Amino acid sequence: MRSDNPWKLLSSKTVYQNPWIRVREDSVIHPSGKEGIYGVIESKDSVIVAALNEKNEVYLIRSFSYPAQIWHWELPGGGSDGEEIRLASKRELEEETGIIAETWDEIGTTRVSDGLMTEKMITLVARDLSIGSKIAKEDENHIDGGKFVSLKEVSRMVTAGEINEGQTITALYLLEHWLQKD
Amino acid sequence: MRSDNPWKLLSSKTVYQNPWIRVREDSVIHPSGKEGIYGVIESKDSVIVAALNEKNEVYLIRSFSYPAQIWHWELPGGGSDGEEIRLASKRELEEETGIIAETWDEIGTTRVSDGLMTEKMITLVARDLSIGSKIAKEDENHIDGGKFVSLKEVSRMVTAGEINEGQTITALYLLEHWLQKD
Repeated sequence: MRSDNPWKLLSSKTVYQNPWIRVREDSVIHPSGKEGIYGVIESKDSVIVAALNEKNEVYLIRSFSYPAQIWHWELPGGGSDGEEIRLASKRELEEETGIIAETWDEIGTTRVSDGLMTEKMITLVARDLSIGSKIAKEDENHIDGGKFVSLKEVSRMVTAGEINEGQTITALYLLEHWLQKD
Repeated sequence: MRSDNPWKLLSSKTVYQNPWIRVREDSVIHPSGKEGIYGVIESKDSVIVAALNEKNEVYLIRSFSYPAQIWHWELPGGGSDGEEIRLASKRELEEETGIIAETWDEIGTTRVSDGLMTEKMITLVARDLSIGSKIAKEDENHIDGGKFVSLKEVSRMVTAGEINEGQTITALYLLEHWLQKD
């Protein structure tokens, strides 16, 4: 632990594990001096892809979130499976949308949840797009649609709750500010 | 489960629980037809507050993320503890910053993590600010600074990685688009 860390770690144990997450419970001394526990979720780092066409429209997919039990619109992405980032991003984009991109830019690394998770998410912009030969069906996600949408329409969809998931909205913030710099 | 749900739930069990989170493991049939498991993290819904002064600068706090083991800048907020949203928001804002706000607007409900968590986050804008009499020290967070920052400087801080956490960045997207509508 780093020297400016206001917490002290006493011990740590794994309390649950599956192929995607490990949950550990740390015994800690709080910044206040009190003893207690902290449950932390460890999961693979992930990638999320903003695929932009010539009109700067971004490609959204409609998928089902199992934890939330709802259909919603989001940017394609997923766990990086320990692959090199650009390779993982290309795979996720082609599997979920059938799109192949020539030009890739990494525009930010963020954390998904401040208080509970270790997961980092890398946002990439994909440009110079073409349509690949096939869309691989994934076991994990059910995707039933996809479309290019202007950033103005994206903003309307966020306000209307049609896009409602923080990983996608975080990537949209990064995308808008990256485009403003161009 | 809803009728357009492409997953089938076979059974569900709690595999870990502490006062803040419950981890459950569902036995499921994937959209593909295969049998498998899905680990889901349940946690309290949370609030996050963008406190704006007359210059539309937003108040950031510097705090330590235990899961990430880093200091970073973020918007104040936290678990809603089952309280009514506005009450929870007022409490979090005053505890973490000492600021009291007269005017409150709820500007969006989002989900923190698409694939793993059930947590919903409500973003509020707080205006007509004054400084309260005290800052309560919290056990859970260690906060060592706070400041009002322009949205342009916020964008620079995100690009530089000084703000790097998705819940804050999600709220910033909502805030910018809400201000553009005003």
